[in-house]
Amino acid sequence: MKKLFGACYYPEHWEPDRIEKDVEIMKTLGFNAVRIGEFAWSFVEPSPGEYDFSLFDRVIETFSKNGIGVIMGTPTATPPAWLVKSHPEILQENESGHKLNFGSRRHYCFNSLVYRKFAREITRKYAERYGKSDTIIAWQIDNEYGCHNSTLCYCDNCAKKFRKWLKDKYHNIEALNKAWGTVFWSQQYRDWEEIDPPRHTIASHNPSLSLDYMRFSSDSAIEFHREMAEEVRKYSSKPITHNLMVNFTEIDYYKLSKELDFVSWDNYIPGDYDYHLQGMNHDLMRSLKNEPFLVMEQQPGRVNWRKVNNYHDPEQLKYWIAQSMAHGAFGSLIFRYRQLPYGAEQYHSALLNYDGSLTPRAIAAKEGFKAFMDEEILIPIKETAIYIDYENFWIDRTDRLNNNFSLLSDSILIAYKALRELGYNVDFVFPEDDISEYKLLFIPSAYYVRDEFLKKLSTFNGKLIVTAMTSSKDEYNNIRSSIPYGLEEILGVKVVDFGGIEQAQDLMLNGKKFKGKFILEVLKILDAETIGDFLYPYEKFPAVTRKGNAIYIASIPEESLLKELLLSIGFEKRINGAEIINFKGTSVLLNPYPEKREIEFGHDKIFLEPFFWKIL
Amino acid sequence: MKKLFGACYYPEHWEPDRIEKDVEIMKTLGFNAVRIGEFAWSFVEPSPGEYDFSLFDRVIETFSKNGIGVIMGTPTATPPAWLVKSHPEILQENESGHKLNFGSRRHYCFNSLVYRKFAREITRKYAERYGKSDTIIAWQIDNEYGCHNSTLCYCDNCAKKFRKWLKDKYHNIEALNKAWGTVFWSQQYRDWEEIDPPRHTIASHNPSLSLDYMRFSSDSAIEFHREMAEEVRKYSSKPITHNLMVNFTEIDYYKLSKELDFVSWDNYIPGDYDYHLQGMNHDLMRSLKNEPFLVMEQQPGRVNWRKVNNYHDPEQLKYWIAQSMAHGAFGSLIFRYRQLPYGAEQYHSALLNYDGSLTPRAIAAKEGFKAFMDEEILIPIKETAIYIDYENFWIDRTDRLNNNFSLLSDSILIAYKALRELGYNVDFVFPEDDISEYKLLFIPSAYYVRDEFLKKLSTFNGKLIVTAMTSSKDEYNNIRSSIPYGLEEILGVKVVDFGGIEQAQDLMLNGKKFKGKFILEVLKILDAETIGDFLYPYEKFPAVTRKGNAIYIASIPEESLLKELLLSIGFEKRINGAEIINFKGTSVLLNPYPEKREIEFGHDKIFLEPFFWKIL
Amino acid sequence: MKKLFGACYYPEHWEPDRIEKDVEIMKTLGFNAVRIGEFAWSFVEPSPGEYDFSLFDRVIETFSKNGIGVIMGTPTATPPAWLVKSHPEILQENESGHKLNFGSRRHYCFNSLVYRKFAREITRKYAERYGKSDTIIAWQIDNEYGCHNSTLCYCDNCAKKFRKWLKDKYHNIEALNKAWGTVFWSQQYRDWEEIDPPRHTIASHNPSLSLDYMRFSSDSAIEFHREMAEEVRKYSSKPITHNLMVNFTEIDYYKLSKELDFVSWDNYIPGDYDYHLQGMNHDLMRSLKNEPFLVMEQQPGRVNWRKVNNYHDPEQLKYWIAQSMAHGAFGSLIFRYRQLPYGAEQYHSALLNYDGSLTPRAIAAKEGFKAFMDEEILIPIKETAIYIDYENFWIDRTDRLNNNFSLLSDSILIAYKALRELGYNVDFVFPEDDISEYKLLFIPSAYYVRDEFLKKLSTFNGKLIVTAMTSSKDEYNNIRSSIPYGLEEILGVKVVDFGGIEQAQDLMLNGKKFKGKFILEVLKILDAETIGDFLYPYEKFPAVTRKGNAIYIASIPEESLLKELLLSIGFEKRINGAEIINFKGTSVLLNPYPEKREIEFGHDKIFLEPFFWKIL
Repeated sequence: MKKLFGACYYPEHWEPDRIEKDVEIMKTLGFNAVRIGEFAWSFVEPSPGEYDFSLFDRVIETFSKNGIGVIMGTPTATPPAWLVKSHPEILQENESGHKLNFGSRRHYCFNSLVYRKFAREITRKYAERYGKSDTIIAWQIDNEYGCHNSTLCYCDNCAKKFRKWLKDKYHNIEALNKAWGTVFWSQQYRDWEEIDPPRHTIASHNPSLSLDYMRFSSDSAIEFHREMAEEVRKYSSKPITHNLMVNFTEIDYYKLSKELDFVSWDNYIPGDYDYHLQGMNHDLMRSLKNEPFLVMEQQPGRVNWRKVNNYHDPEQLKYWIAQSMAHGAFGSLIFRYRQLPYGAEQYHSALLNYDGSLTPRAIAAKEGFKAFMDEEILIPIKETAIYIDYENFWIDRTDRLNNNFSLLSDSILIAYKALRELGYNVDFVFPEDDISEYKLLFIPSAYYVRDEFLKKLSTFNGKLIVTAMTSSKDEYNNIRSSIPYGLEEILGVKVVDFGGIEQAQDLMLNGKKFKGKFILEVLKILDAETIGDFLYPYEKFPAVTRKGNAIYIASIPEESLLKELLLSIGFEKRINGAEIINFKGTSVLLNPYPEKREIEFGHDKIFLEPFFWKIL
Repeated sequence: MKKLFGACYYPEHWEPDRIEKDVEIMKTLGFNAVRIGEFAWSFVEPSPGEYDFSLFDRVIETFSKNGIGVIMGTPTATPPAWLVKSHPEILQENESGHKLNFGSRRHYCFNSLVYRKFAREITRKYAERYGKSDTIIAWQIDNEYGCHNSTLCYCDNCAKKFRKWLKDKYHNIEALNKAWGTVFWSQQYRDWEEIDPPRHTIASHNPSLSLDYMRFSSDSAIEFHREMAEEVRKYSSKPITHNLMVNFTEIDYYKLSKELDFVSWDNYIPGDYDYHLQGMNHDLMRSLKNEPFLVMEQQPGRVNWRKVNNYHDPEQLKYWIAQSMAHGAFGSLIFRYRQLPYGAEQYHSALLNYDGSLTPRAIAAKEGFKAFMDEEILIPIKETAIYIDYENFWIDRTDRLNNNFSLLSDSILIAYKALRELGYNVDFVFPEDDISEYKLLFIPSAYYVRDEFLKKLSTFNGKLIVTAMTSSKDEYNNIRSSIPYGLEEILGVKVVDFGGIEQAQDLMLNGKKFKGKFILEVLKILDAETIGDFLYPYEKFPAVTRKGNAIYIASIPEESLLKELLLSIGFEKRINGAEIINFKGTSVLLNPYPEKREIEFGHDKIFLEPFFWKIL
Repeated sequence: MKKLFGACYYPEHWEPDRIEKDVEIMKTLGFNAVRIGEFAWSFVEPSPGEYDFSLFDRVIETFSKNGIGVIMGTPTATPPAWLVKSHPEILQENESGHKLNFGSRRHYCFNSLVYRKFAREITRKYAERYGKSDTIIAWQIDNEYGCHNSTLCYCDNCAKKFRKWLKDKYHNIEALNKAWGTVFWSQQYRDWEEIDPPRHTIASHNPSLSLDYMRFSSDSAIEFHREMAEEVRKYSSKPITHNLMVNFTEIDYYKLSKELDFVSWDNYIPGDYDYHLQGMNHDLMRSLKNEPFLVMEQQPGRVNWRKVNNYHDPEQLKYWIAQSMAHGAFGSLIFRYRQLPYGAEQYHSALLNYDGSLTPRAIAAKEGFKAFMDEEILIPIKETAIYIDYENFWIDRTDRLNNNFSLLSDSILIAYKALRELGYNVDFVFPEDDISEYKLLFIPSAYYVRDEFLKKLSTFNGKLIVTAMTSSKDEYNNIRSSIPYGLEEILGVKVVDFGGIEQAQDLMLNGKKFKGKFILEVLKILDAETIGDFLYPYEKFPAVTRKGNAIYIASIPEESLLKELLLSIGFEKRINGAEIINFKGTSVLLNPYPEKREIEFGHDKIFLEPFFWKIL
């Protein structure tokens, strides 16, 4: 894969004659790629069946002449007004039965057959037109599936499709009734037609239904994607991708990424900035296919859609580019090339100012691109891994022991940060992945662990850390016959009781006090050693146990507890005050802070400029 | 009434062959009763008109052989999918016009005639089948009316029924217009058909309409209950009950309990645990009929439906059983017998584990049952009383002087706690009740006091404490012509002005500073003595007055103020650090805390183990 | 304009025979005016087409005999039940498509032609009946447009009307597409019929559409008003007004007040009482026409519709009357004359008690009226001015850089308070107003500054203070080509970047530290002098600049910063601890506090009683 640097570009937003000037500027900034096209439906098809691709033709020709590749985005995220007005049945419906309205984006239902027909048609038009162009280097299908909480729709199209999906899965209604336990609360179904999406009720839905609905909804998005990609592939042999999102868990990205020729994602920075959270998302994106990935949209500074759209120092953009490259990106496109004075995102920052002049962010990007253009694309060496299965996010959401707890930010992110703070690379591994090469595997509260993965664990030789609730649920979102199912022998413990905890609970490990949070489990020790105990009023209960390489924590650990634990089982603190990524024979050190830092690295002291990095 | 101990049991959730094993376990745990059947509609009538009672037949026969009585629950809280699909008009509708959906429970409208027909039919089937069985010891109609805020429905069935209800009450529209004051804001009705439920509006509804709608809604639930009970009574002579709920105020439980042969309720523990709150609910349940009551569902540990589903020490269950017996229960059924690995309540704890093994909670329950099985059922002696009228909760909700104020938790509970902290028994008295035997009667902010009760007050000889807003409203939710209406002579004061207060207001009583909260009244002293004054900036205003035995507080007092007041009018502090209930010739002391306690009781010191009790 | 003192009176709420008694009382209180009639539709037209004005006839005759003038309110804010039932299409619809229901008030849609017909009809009936009466001194059309967030409706009537409004504005759809930038997110319209109100979507609407919809909604209210006023003018030559509201920004009051013969408003006191906020609203109301205004409804004490309906000292009413007169009112009517024991406002205080007796507020009002009855009506002299354009409130709401920021309370009110705390009069000036006489003009974050006003600024000779975001937007809610557009030369700076800030940012002015809030701008200095800098981490950025008389602040200043700045450019601290209003040759000092105060005024010390005032 070639390095790609550039930006997201919207020639339809400007005077047609601007294109030559823009390409000239792009070249001075070191661009070799742009993405275009993904919101241009009403522009290229202003009336049903009337197409005008002339501007894009000119744009592509100009890029072609200047050696800049084009990632072409298909425009199905924004069905135009004429389509919505003539076919309002394509609109999403929320759980209270409200139809979404035209006026922003992502207003369509993945399961509308009418919409799929129109979407295939416009996708085909794009593909026919540019499928053979050498300038096109890749395709992006649609844009940010699931953005603005748009994955789940509850309309009648979805109801119909859901019934079919269930029929394909369970074959007969009795099997479904049994799997879901519908005898509880008198919910037995006689007929598939009686089953609806989990629309608004006053008390909890059946969690098996809810989990299947999330599976179905994820599958619906993926099926939509597959159909569109099929159209493109008829006309083009270029790789196809879709831009994934930070912290999104409604679509099974692992499953979706099987449909993608490479993974790309949009690196936006949540309001409460944490560079480890961005790092985690990079590592997750790399891990989806265990390959380099593309940052399709890189936030350059202020955005427009947050509660507070923070000012960012332009230098920080350079750091963000470097961080993504260090975590395994093969390129970075800045969203967007130029600030747009109109429309819903007019407060969004860009490389160029509203007036077309360069901003300091353009200079920062240029320098960032230049620094990595000649570096080899490498992916970090395998050191430690964290287990992820997207279905566990759905279980976390559909049946709640403690509503204050979030699987992603309270369990997975905490495990990630402990490992990264010590200086270890982290991969995310999925049920199908090989885990044999890792020296440590972390299983953070994985409610449901698939049989195939349990099998792998039984022969895993590295260190293993498992936290509360792991393997407590089966594939139907039901409680396992014993907990942690399939892991009792490896871990040497059995969970005999559990409950939420309002306040963090003190526990003792290595003579130091730490906090267990959100959940408390009562363990029966089979043949593990207790290495940490809870304190008052639960001083009789083991908190941390060890059996050989396998450690179990009967709560949700805080980061400091995990670091202590890691240090006590043979890991070391490699770094202080910076981010480090380790490659074969080299490491990259990055300073995520706006001030100069002195970094302790082994016995050395290394100085890093604000937002800067060093390849060792 | 016989003592009843046992659990709520769902044979339909398990393999049919499990029943014999379960009954064996139940006997070892000391059960003599179970409740079954209340969510089994789709199980016994899987298709319309097709009934299969064979499992319940077997279950009842097995209980019969083993001397365990059965409370049979009718299943109308959960109309099955086939019924909802064929008759969606039975679904509730919220104030914005959204129909509830199938998928949880309590989705039906009390006023749907279609639903009533189906509900009577399934109720009759249950009654026909088991009406003559000696094993059946009682009936529970439906389950937890009003749970999940399901009392109020705003559908067209309700609109139609409400108009009839109004016609029966007011006879002619002019009487209604006058009673409601519809001339305000141009709301005069010409015709009953113009009146709708208080559906969503942008500003306040007419409070008279709102109050009548709450009366109507409560009546609708009670009428539904009465119809179902009628069906049962045709076939069975066993007592009929319904399981009431902690802190529920939408249905007039006093009125409903007239339809019940005995009161039962479900003792669930709000997140912010307060043993006095549970005690208050027990006392309220006992007071409804002034008879022993049954705890139909006793939370054993963790539940599944709270924000945080807390872990609870198994020993605490023993305390909860003891507390209920001490407050006048004649039995306690644990909800539920065995943890269910599927369905919406799969995180709910139980006596048996998911795998059918005993949990420590089973042992705790067994010990709790055993301790009380041979004790006589007694109800606490009459000492003090608090006045309650459910309609005042509705007035509190439909016209708000201070939205931070809750009649139940800020006024009634505070009065209760002050009395209980000193060690006095508390009964709740209703307008129809006799009050002559009490040495103290507390009237906490009773907006509307009925004439019949005003009459009783005029001859009451005990101490009387009355707090702000009492007797300020008439039966139409309108302001009385003078306040406190009908009590000026008894109390010797007149309220001439009032208002909310954002911050608590200092006042002085017996040389000590206390807080008045939420409301401040300006009193005109008729012939009372001022015994407490507000401080700056209202130092001219009396805060607490006394005329003979009658005390008035021109605000909402904090607990410490009430204790001071009680001590100064002849009450004493009987106990320190434990709960006490007083019976003829004996008392029960209970330790609600997880640690051992030394209790001061008179001149004695008594040691109580954690969560334990002593009968003196 | 004659001084008007009195109250809002509802004869239809009481026994008809009460009127003579009431008028007698009113005379003793010093009334010379009342407002009646504005919620009496169902009273005067109990059935469609059946009118009964007999009570009002008697009332007006009685007032006439007693020399009390009547402001007649037309009753269109409360369409009666019979009208709503027969024409439900007149009801408002919210952005989710819910129809409002009958039962409170303001439930009608301004754009319902059906409603307009009925509304004209009842308005004409009022006008016909009383148009020639000498007792009528003025008309109030409808009541509190926009109250309870009722300005914006999203129904199909509105959609239809909005399309017409757009057609009138843009003439052809291409002009609209261009102005709104609909090419963004594929929102180009082919046809006017494709455009809908900004109903509920999952992401942001086009801000140009949103702004036009707010303009349209404001225009709809004004058009409704104009139609009703037309009816009245056919029969009456008396002045016409409407009662405006505190802090309301959804209707362009400047535009509306052109339709009014005099401005009146309802002085209600937000929960978190701030006398400057009330003062600001008075000054704004006076500034709308630059004429004395009427307080049509003066809160006398407790209201009924707040979270906490606070008790208020009766003396405070006297202060409120005095404050309004000092700010330029020509009268004050208390809402309401007598407390009403029924209906949605039964907790609202009044001059008379529920039983018809005088409250202390009646005495306070009487004294307040008396004090000002013989004073000349004066308006404060022109000293300083703050620029307001209602459209900027709409821009502030439809495109948000920092959602924590409120243009009204964080920018305009802060500027007002700084000026008032120093003791300067403040006028509000609108784009069309003359500004030449002011010694200082403040432009607080005026996103959009109209060309006509930019022109005035270029010749303005006073001091000028401009804060962040000013002149950053054009009339379509789009970003200006340069910022602050049209003011670079005057201010000597250019804004080259900007962003929200989560936390207040330190900055240094005159050697003292202050806070900039919400927004941070990066300035390019053209030819201004930097007089204040931001501190770490933005110490390179100018915070406050000065070019001659023109000062720019690149953030949202706190009040203390502004006071420091004002003092350093020639303003002085005239007063300490009281409110002051300056007139030609005299000043009024007011003590807004409940305690006696010693006021420093120049070299004098002046004592002011609680809630009292002094004319110097």
